[in-house]
Amino acid sequence: MPMLKDPSKKYKRFPPLNLPDRQWPSKTIGKAPRWLATDLRDGNQSLVDPMNGEQKFEYFKMLCELGYKEIEVSFPSASQTDFDFTRRLIETPGVVPDDVWLQVLSPCREDLIKRTVESVRGAKKAVIHIYLATSECFRRIVFGFTEEESLALAAKCAALVRSLTKDDPSQAGTEWQFEFSPETFSDTSAEYVIKVCEAVKAAWGPSEEHPIIFNLPATVEMSTPNVYADQIEYFCRNISEREKICVSLHPHNDRGCAVAAAELAQMAGADRVEGCLFGNGERTGNVDLVTLALNLYTQGVSPNIDFSDLNKVIKVVEACNKIEVHPRAPYGGSLVVCAFSGSHQDAIKKGFQLREKEGKGYDEYWQVPYLPLDPKDIGRDYQAVIRVNSQSGKGGAAWIIQQHLYLDLPRGLQVAFSRVVQKMADEKGRELLPTEITELFRQTYSLNRNPRFGIVDYAIAPDRSSSPAPPAPGKTQDTKNLMRVFEGVVSIDGIEHKLRGRGNGPISSLANALRTVGIDLDVQDYKEHAVGRGREVKAATYIECTAAGTDEKVWGVGLHEDVVQSSLSALLSAASNFVLSRQGSPIVPRPSSPQTPSGSHDLIPLDGINGTNGTVKIPQIIQTLEEHAEKL
Amino acid sequence: MPMLKDPSKKYKRFPPLNLPDRQWPSKTIGKAPRWLATDLRDGNQSLVDPMNGEQKFEYFKMLCELGYKEIEVSFPSASQTDFDFTRRLIETPGVVPDDVWLQVLSPCREDLIKRTVESVRGAKKAVIHIYLATSECFRRIVFGFTEEESLALAAKCAALVRSLTKDDPSQAGTEWQFEFSPETFSDTSAEYVIKVCEAVKAAWGPSEEHPIIFNLPATVEMSTPNVYADQIEYFCRNISEREKICVSLHPHNDRGCAVAAAELAQMAGADRVEGCLFGNGERTGNVDLVTLALNLYTQGVSPNIDFSDLNKVIKVVEACNKIEVHPRAPYGGSLVVCAFSGSHQDAIKKGFQLREKEGKGYDEYWQVPYLPLDPKDIGRDYQAVIRVNSQSGKGGAAWIIQQHLYLDLPRGLQVAFSRVVQKMADEKGRELLPTEITELFRQTYSLNRNPRFGIVDYAIAPDRSSSPAPPAPGKTQDTKNLMRVFEGVVSIDGIEHKLRGRGNGPISSLANALRTVGIDLDVQDYKEHAVGRGREVKAATYIECTAAGTDEKVWGVGLHEDVVQSSLSALLSAASNFVLSRQGSPIVPRPSSPQTPSGSHDLIPLDGINGTNGTVKIPQIIQTLEEHAEKL
Repeated sequence: MPMLKDPSKKYKRFPPLNLPDRQWPSKTIGKAPRWLATDLRDGNQSLVDPMNGEQKFEYFKMLCELGYKEIEVSFPSASQTDFDFTRRLIETPGVVPDDVWLQVLSPCREDLIKRTVESVRGAKKAVIHIYLATSECFRRIVFGFTEEESLALAAKCAALVRSLTKDDPSQAGTEWQFEFSPETFSDTSAEYVIKVCEAVKAAWGPSEEHPIIFNLPATVEMSTPNVYADQIEYFCRNISEREKICVSLHPHNDRGCAVAAAELAQMAGADRVEGCLFGNGERTGNVDLVTLALNLYTQGVSPNIDFSDLNKVIKVVEACNKIEVHPRAPYGGSLVVCAFSGSHQDAIKKGFQLREKEGKGYDEYWQVPYLPLDPKDIGRDYQAVIRVNSQSGKGGAAWIIQQHLYLDLPRGLQVAFSRVVQKMADEKGRELLPTEITELFRQTYSLNRNPRFGIVDYAIAPDRSSSPAPPAPGKTQDTKNLMRVFEGVVSIDGIEHKLRGRGNGPISSLANALRTVGIDLDVQDYKEHAVGRGREVKAATYIECTAAGTDEKVWGVGLHEDVVQSSLSALLSAASNFVLSRQGSPIVPRPSSPQTPSGSHDLIPLDGINGTNGTVKIPQIIQTLEEHAEKL
Repeated sequence: MPMLKDPSKKYKRFPPLNLPDRQWPSKTIGKAPRWLATDLRDGNQSLVDPMNGEQKFEYFKMLCELGYKEIEVSFPSASQTDFDFTRRLIETPGVVPDDVWLQVLSPCREDLIKRTVESVRGAKKAVIHIYLATSECFRRIVFGFTEEESLALAAKCAALVRSLTKDDPSQAGTEWQFEFSPETFSDTSAEYVIKVCEAVKAAWGPSEEHPIIFNLPATVEMSTPNVYADQIEYFCRNISEREKICVSLHPHNDRGCAVAAAELAQMAGADRVEGCLFGNGERTGNVDLVTLALNLYTQGVSPNIDFSDLNKVIKVVEACNKIEVHPRAPYGGSLVVCAFSGSHQDAIKKGFQLREKEGKGYDEYWQVPYLPLDPKDIGRDYQAVIRVNSQSGKGGAAWIIQQHLYLDLPRGLQVAFSRVVQKMADEKGRELLPTEITELFRQTYSLNRNPRFGIVDYAIAPDRSSSPAPPAPGKTQDTKNLMRVFEGVVSIDGIEHKLRGRGNGPISSLANALRTVGIDLDVQDYKEHAVGRGREVKAATYIECTAAGTDEKVWGVGLHEDVVQSSLSALLSAASNFVLSRQGSPIVPRPSSPQTPSGSHDLIPLDGINGTNGTVKIPQIIQTLEEHAEKL
């Protein structure tokens, strides 16, 4: 059966309050509210398998460490476990910090209130919290009470709590607060709630120093969150002796707007928020205290709660609640600091790079695209930010390569490599691991071993055959302006070729030498940078080539302690990819005779070599990159 | 390292728009927006392992069945999978319903736009969607663009799309829409966004009949949702030719307020919402389309989307996204129609009972405490609503018993049984299954077999030894006013006792008979109702007793086709519990001689039996409950 085409008979639009002069939409939140963590009460009572005493104990200690000062620990009249747990907190020395309030909940029933007060006897600081649903729906269906009866019961119970606590000399060792919740507040007439609360206030007798807490729950979320904010503003403006009242919020998440409701209602005047870590609680949960706190933090307002090790908090919460934090939960979810898509990765990478370039410290102004919070603030690193799958573009794989191999790929190479990555991700049909991506990069650009080309020996020497002006008397010849000659032995598909080429630097001279064996590449782009520092420094070289006379582009990468060899390797890496793109047939026809042993080059085609300087062993000297670049 | 004590240097408060004459807070939402489902694009690109073509295909078909008319199917220029999938949709006959628009996304780059338009060639209805981030942060960090450059690029790309689509005669077979997203809208100056959109509008040339879609994303949620609503209202009020524009929303959930942002922004004038089922999408996800739709529904507004088999939707979504729907997700979560706590269960139970009592049909006014939506509307039953653990009170277990055994327990019995249930749940440290609860009930009240007491034979006869007035001439004697006598054989701890007792009905006469063997129970309360209908009907009897002269209460339950035997069994069930509460020692001293074979009662103490009528086999006649009740 499909859903109703016209549901207006079954479900009525919630009538909003008429409050045209509302002030809250122009306000912002400038300070943290008082927090009440009800994980051990509202959160716990809604679990398939509630926590045992030990779990509650650990959870309580964590809440204290995080900085919560008001903690609803139990519903002592409803369960022996809860009663015993409350006693354990009070009777175990050193567990409850001096500035932490223990809050306990009771329905408006005399015997249950008595047992509830008994459960906190001897506590340093205690909040007795009683509730009575005040909506027409609950009064009619659940209690069968008139408005007058509900009001009288609430006032009577407030007076009872008073007589059992602050008016009882035997309870003088405890500092008391009293909280009253007109349950289903958000579904109760605004005028009637005020009436009930006035009666309760009179019964309790608060002062400015010792205000009464009126907790105004959205027991069930009834409408858009602005309506709740209107209700709270109306309450704050119409209750008498506002200065003797702490207005508390308790929004549930039935319409997915509990966080918004809590924030708009704070703008509307509320002082305190009740909720649970990661939004545990009845049905859709209470408002999520993690999100509220970090929403404040990312606006520059300290929440007075410390989530600097959020992963540890998640671990405890998941173990106790047996409910996983959703991968997309704000701040805490495993996927919320991840970017898979190309444009997102690219932007984030640029944000991090700029931050590094500007030398921004941990506590300095944070502005990184797509990341409203520095992952470090909640104890997460940047490695997990960018992850790569078939939807990722150049930025993602480039980021991984930069993070793991310290190679800062030029844009064109990022594009070329991303195609390789995307193909692999498509084939595997899943996310690629960083190790897979780095290995793919090493293979693609022959960083481990070039399967087709190898330099056996080489020398780069000034080409003295050309004719610059002879040096002035008393000066040595200026070799800087001389052309360079590559002479060496290059193995191609296992066969060694003695090659010679002339150019204005090592790369162009090797390129020219390769032309003699049919590898006709034009170097289009070139980039080089140091990797690492001090003795460990290597040179990384990136070369983009086109096959002569075509648009076909190939990239090569070299990485070597010797900058010259890094350049040469990069060109051979490009050559290898060029050959691969030509279906990998051997470039140089093999001689039909048995292969020449290494070192003897007699049978190798040597056309193009203009002279035969002796070969030189590969120099292991690190030149500065600047020197090298000049010679390109 | 703890979080920053003062984060105001690192994070700046987002500056809200100055819009004191905003109108949206007094509005409500009276109709569904146009929906755009971007599960296959924004949702898919943010998955650890994106969907393969087959999964996208199934997902697309489901979206059509649910009622979505605009579906963003791909990012064709970014991935071959996406391009191929788009072609498959268009080239496979009968897959895309005639009234469904295929939307495809492209960045503002000429080559990518061309490929994107190519991907939908031949479609019946297509939306080309291009985006360009307009915020200062993105222009500076990601693009290096001035405001003027960004604006020019956007306008140029809009013109390009126009030339490739509605202005291209070869594309006349397709109905075109154009969507432009100033990405990072919510972080862009409101005036500048208007300027960019005016330029794009001029380039596209919309009409009232064919409006342009301006999608205004909260690419990253920047502030409280009222600020986003202000931005949308500002845009709607300040863009020219508003009637030629469809204002679309695309809120992400970084601060947990995407649903609120989408709702408040609809109140502020938006016409269309982009999102994903269950809030999939980059990082914290896009706004959740399920919540938005059902939020409308529970306010009496049809969303034009059918979630009447939400479990099936969840199955497809979970399989394709490889992300579970959170147990507390609004509407869809497995725990959101569950209540564990006592007071919630009790209230819900009363709500359902009243509804049944009032004979309310499926489509009639819904008002059940704590349940904003009738679970049946989304294809769920009521069985799962109330679940029982150590936090549950009387209502929960009573509900289970009612749902599974059809027994409507009186309140006192609910309380008594809930203690038994709570003890078991505490011991097991987990939720109890319905089968465990029903079995516990059967055992506790001896419904399967009474371990200590059994009725072997009995007769209930009018006590003619008393002296009512003789019948008037011509009438039979009125037996209704006679006392009753129980005479029968009751086995106690395996030993048969011949008992006799007199009372004003079967229960009181058996109770009196039991007194003769030391079981001294006063019947305090009694309730009886039929279970089932027609030939299958049984009588259920609930009896509350106190041990004579004490406050100690015990309950007994009987269930039998014969109402009399049901009553007697209930009393013996109570007797068994009474004995149990006395540590279970045998009530009647066993004789030292070997046990008497059944049927021979010679050795059984018979004190209290005043006469020896022959025993009568248990009658199998069903009496009406009314008849029986009269005789109690």
